[in-house]
Amino acid sequence: MTWVPMEPLTNMQRYWLITGSIAPRPIALVTSCSRDCRCNAAPFSSFTYMGEEPSLMVIGIDKYGEESHRPGETKDTLTNITTRREFVVNMVDEAIGERMVACATDYPAHVSEVEAAGFTLVNSTAIGVPRLAEAPIAWECKLFKVLEFSRQRSIVFGEIVGMHFREGLLDEVGPRVRLDQFTPLGRLGGPNYCRSIDRLRLPVPTYSSVGKPRV
Amino acid sequence: MTWVPMEPLTNMQRYWLITGSIAPRPIALVTSCSRDCRCNAAPFSSFTYMGEEPSLMVIGIDKYGEESHRPGETKDTLTNITTRREFVVNMVDEAIGERMVACATDYPAHVSEVEAAGFTLVNSTAIGVPRLAEAPIAWECKLFKVLEFSRQRSIVFGEIVGMHFREGLLDEVGPRVRLDQFTPLGRLGGPNYCRSIDRLRLPVPTYSSVGKPRV
Repeated sequence: MTWVPMEPLTNMQRYWLITGSIAPRPIALVTSCSRDCRCNAAPFSSFTYMGEEPSLMVIGIDKYGEESHRPGETKDTLTNITTRREFVVNMVDEAIGERMVACATDYPAHVSEVEAAGFTLVNSTAIGVPRLAEAPIAWECKLFKVLEFSRQRSIVFGEIVGMHFREGLLDEVGPRVRLDQFTPLGRLGGPNYCRSIDRLRLPVPTYSSVGKPRV
Repeated sequence: MTWVPMEPLTNMQRYWLITGSIAPRPIALVTSCSRDCRCNAAPFSSFTYMGEEPSLMVIGIDKYGEESHRPGETKDTLTNITTRREFVVNMVDEAIGERMVACATDYPAHVSEVEAAGFTLVNSTAIGVPRLAEAPIAWECKLFKVLEFSRQRSIVFGEIVGMHFREGLLDEVGPRVRLDQFTPLGRLGGPNYCRSIDRLRLPVPTYSSVGKPRV
């Protein structure tokens, strides 16, 4: 094994090692709107769920990096979420993967990246921020809390108010997601993604079926 | 699209819909130790990275559920992390998938699930809690903060002190993780997992290459 301490590394080196190690990551394609209703979609893979009661998810949102077209600026998604206190997490499957990354393109300010990327905004049910019609699953969320552990990044907790499922994706019994119909993309390091269709079942064995432990 | 509001659902129904939607999720196989050095390994998929400065990761840890062998009790991992303020996140690849789920088996208290599952504890470099020799990548972490938004769940932020990489997994130039050598498993809903080897590259297009937006 090779040991790499974090302390001597630059932030960019840390980013590459952390995001290269922790994989595959689910992708939140977040729709959010400014006070004057300019709506925005942006992908985040520093994202996961954080509980059921309340129904929480978390997203880490950095400031724009030095290599970007707006270095040091706050991302529109964060400004919009803290202003409107509502947003939508759209899940990303194979069908919308290319459109998802197009949302991260450096469009000039007057361009709506949502429409430029080929998505359609449709009204949400419980909140004022629209969702993407093309997403297989969309979570309507209200802002729960924002943490600021450093200048570089904000940590946003959202409470899930309700979910939309594309036709055929919800098994009303349960209810459960029909995993055989759901093909989410996972994020690896850099511009690398994986499909999720090569699957296996690994049920947790019970003690009696495991037999005697080795010690 | 089908709309499912969260409020009327039970916690277990919410769990199934949330964890069925957000996928594939990376898996943290966490090693932690009690005050008297009984060491424990347990898998968590409510887990992701949360920044570079500080180098943070987050894990959501529930109390044991009603269907478990210790309903309502605090998990040993959480007790250990808050006691020792150190832990290791071991990444999970295809080679150790079955051993990972074996760590979630309902072993009686006197059994070390680490050894019963077929793992080997080895000393860490910067902290007193051991890592798993068989993990492809292991992060040594110190406790950064614990949040309690509800009785059901604790949200643990850890600071990554350093990383171990299995031979061949680290490209010293950069440094970067050699993704072509890394085969992490992703978690889907229930006992369903996916391999991450069916991959695609989706670089973000620049504005000029995208051409005129459609609006």
